[in-house]
Amino acid sequence: MEFLVEVETRWPIDGDPHRKAELVAAESARAGALAAQGALKRLWRVPGTWKNVGLWQATDATELHQILSSLPFFPWMTIEVRAMATHPNDPINL
Amino acid sequence: MEFLVEVETRWPIDGDPHRKAELVAAESARAGALAAQGALKRLWRVPGTWKNVGLWQATDATELHQILSSLPFFPWMTIEVRAMATHPNDPINL
Amino acid sequence: MEFLVEVETRWPIDGDPHRKAELVAAESARAGALAAQGALKRLWRVPGTWKNVGLWQATDATELHQILSSLPFFPWMTIEVRAMATHPNDPINL
Amino acid sequence: MEFLVEVETRWPIDGDPHRKAELVAAESARAGALAAQGALKRLWRVPGTWKNVGLWQATDATELHQILSSLPFFPWMTIEVRAMATHPNDPINL
Amino acid sequence: MEFLVEVETRWPIDGDPHRKAELVAAESARAGALAAQGALKRLWRVPGTWKNVGLWQATDATELHQILSSLPFFPWMTIEVRAMATHPNDPINL
Amino acid sequence: MEFLVEVETRWPIDGDPHRKAELVAAESARAGALAAQGALKRLWRVPGTWKNVGLWQATDATELHQILSSLPFFPWMTIEVRAMATHPNDPINL
Amino acid sequence: MEFLVEVETRWPIDGDPHRKAELVAAESARAGALAAQGALKRLWRVPGTWKNVGLWQATDATELHQILSSLPFFPWMTIEVRAMATHPNDPINL
Amino acid sequence: MEFLVEVETRWPIDGDPHRKAELVAAESARAGALAAQGALKRLWRVPGTWKNVGLWQATDATELHQILSSLPFFPWMTIEVRAMATHPNDPINL
Amino acid sequence: MEFLVEVETRWPIDGDPHRKAELVAAESARAGALAAQGALKRLWRVPGTWKNVGLWQATDATELHQILSSLPFFPWMTIEVRAMATHPNDPINL
Amino acid sequence: MEFLVEVETRWPIDGDPHRKAELVAAESARAGALAAQGALKRLWRVPGTWKNVGLWQATDATELHQILSSLPFFPWMTIEVRAMATHPNDPINL
Repeated sequence: MEFLVEVETRWPIDGDPHRKAELVAAESARAGALAAQGALKRLWRVPGTWKNVGLWQATDATELHQILSSLPFFPWMTIEVRAMATHPNDPINL
Repeated sequence: MEFLVEVETRWPIDGDPHRKAELVAAESARAGALAAQGALKRLWRVPGTWKNVGLWQATDATELHQILSSLPFFPWMTIEVRAMATHPNDPINL
Repeated sequence: MEFLVEVETRWPIDGDPHRKAELVAAESARAGALAAQGALKRLWRVPGTWKNVGLWQATDATELHQILSSLPFFPWMTIEVRAMATHPNDPINL
Repeated sequence: MEFLVEVETRWPIDGDPHRKAELVAAESARAGALAAQGALKRLWRVPGTWKNVGLWQATDATELHQILSSLPFFPWMTIEVRAMATHPNDPINL
Repeated sequence: MEFLVEVETRWPIDGDPHRKAELVAAESARAGALAAQGALKRLWRVPGTWKNVGLWQATDATELHQILSSLPFFPWMTIEVRAMATHPNDPINL
Repeated sequence: MEFLVEVETRWPIDGDPHRKAELVAAESARAGALAAQGALKRLWRVPGTWKNVGLWQATDATELHQILSSLPFFPWMTIEVRAMATHPNDPINL
Repeated sequence: MEFLVEVETRWPIDGDPHRKAELVAAESARAGALAAQGALKRLWRVPGTWKNVGLWQATDATELHQILSSLPFFPWMTIEVRAMATHPNDPINL
Repeated sequence: MEFLVEVETRWPIDGDPHRKAELVAAESARAGALAAQGALKRLWRVPGTWKNVGLWQATDATELHQILSSLPFFPWMTIEVRAMATHPNDPINL
Repeated sequence: MEFLVEVETRWPIDGDPHRKAELVAAESARAGALAAQGALKRLWRVPGTWKNVGLWQATDATELHQILSSLPFFPWMTIEVRAMATHPNDPINL
Repeated sequence: MEFLVEVETRWPIDGDPHRKAELVAAESARAGALAAQGALKRLWRVPGTWKNVGLWQATDATELHQILSSLPFFPWMTIEVRAMATHPNDPINL
């Protein structure tokens, strides 16, 4: 089942830059792993922000919650999940 | 350039069912054509509604407007366009 | 997978009362059938309104969309679907 | 009388992890007790968040307030209560 | 149990003035009856509008729904119900 | 003239509990005094929150402002005031 | 007591232009009368709209409601009333 | 003085197409005239909609209102005006 | 040109009371000066809050911005400016 | 492709004034450079605030994101980007 997930990361302005760099690297590695296992399918940046919109795949919302809460930046994230149904005109079916 | 586009179609309840069926078929054909030319990349149904979220590709917002206004149901549509930037962790780059 | 679904039905004030009564009966029968098949688990009335909140069970959002769009009053409905994950403290697990 | 209650817990990012773990355990125990006495009937996780939606039973809003304010995490909670009326098509009556 | 209920009545501008006058009279009579039985305790007009805020008493939200849906103008009403808990500083206890 | 006033008190989680207890007692005493002088007529708790809705009486908004700003917790309060007109169906007139 | 009142008038596009002209004249005359009696003190146009913001004077919200509901365009109006308190730095006191 | 003005035009779906074409032509001519007199400086289309954002120049909001209400489609328009102050980093000053 | 300006001042609860008193006095003096030069015409208190609504006069939004940013409390202020057009029924013209 | 971009800068009230002055100068220099390269075309101040609205030019949202994130005040900025399509009545085409 596919979900469109909007994520905003709020890192404190006076936060430790080294810790931030570590987390960015960890986040990137984690995203790669989730992509490899088919959980993360696409990821876009909302321009001008530290927000992204992602296309995620999971059996259900419970599995999706486990995946999202495994992200290194999770404690700094505000997340909104929208469950998507398939559409008859989806090019993926052509 | 990619856009995430949310479209709600409001067809009058007492609208002509035959006209509606014609438009649904035309919309499906148009979507197929736009998919073939790479403009429409993915399309999801927002469950319980006549709303969809689509991943669209266009040179810019002007071209996107021409594409969207060519949809048979366009006069009955309420559309919100969000321009997306690429994300370093997008699986498409892996 | 469970969903919490908010449904508002807008029936025109000058609508045909007989047609309305037929649909109410059909809606009730359909709800019974959906309950029997385990799709509809609970249903509450938002007091003072023609809105309900329902607890629904479906494999995914695609199946849920098929179920909801099969409701007799569907064309008059405004629906908002929220996918729910399980909670460790859910009494259902006790 | 049944209530649908949405609860968001905001724990400070730099909060004491041990204190947090204690509170999580206490919250779980308290939820169990409230389930046993029939006050808490169901509990769902809003995926990607530290929000839950719960189905609660209480004589009235005054009793519900006492129950909710007895939750260990109450000082960190933002709570929205919706009183629910019964619905003729509620499967619970079948 | 007490509820604060906000009600907006939307009567069509080209509606039948005689029918409106009948309904206004019926609404007033019904309000009197509900006041006599203790269901309606106070009623205020939101200035400049056809909105009122009422203090209502009912065993629970189900009974309140029956009362509200018995109001003659109910089909033209948009209603929002808020369940209230008692407050230790409520003058009614002094 | 009557006003419906919604008040939310935001006390810092790490605030001094003794100071809080003092203020709660002072608030209660002040409410009693305002009730005695007819300024505060009713007070309800919004369940699950530190919000109340109050029915207040004052000559005008200027006097109401003086009354509200005299409340011990005023610096921690977010307040919304709605001026109410009388309603012909108000049970108080029966 | 002073109120800031925002009024939007929604006249149907296919409404009778003569009736509209009559009402505009009546509205102007009524505004003059209300200004003469000190009820209407100032009136501004929200540019690009058929909305105005007015400074009104009335003993209380009940009197204000009677005044506003006496406006010829009242049935086509959406009105929001805000009661104002005096301010120590108001130039009117200088 | 410059204003950023957002305009949405709502033309009825079953409106007369000839009348619409006439108005579109008249709107285009009027825009040309307003551009020539320096009132209309720039105009953008919000993609997927019949909304535009315009950069307008007028002595004040009163003049702007006269200009906007002179647009042929004005009766079908919903307009929001934002007055802009100059900015020290505006390239126009370079 | 006239503007209606809504200003909310957020002073930290643990802010220095002496500094606050100084600023209040400075604000009052500044308001007097602005009133004397015709920039500030009226000022109302939103009851129960540290918000005011003011009627301001300035050549344009640029001059208004200079005036507002000269207020002693400006760094603690959240400000919303609405440009007003004249209204034919404004009592000021009678 | 053109974008209308709304930017709010939130600088802490107790922030270092020297650091702020440095950043203001750097921001001004950076704006000049971006104007020279045609990325920044116009910039307006929202009166009474530290918000601006800018007209920006970029190949796509990805390039725009790189430009915006290069602004010295970027970490203190809340940014909303709207992609604009061309409009047939845009004076720029005359």
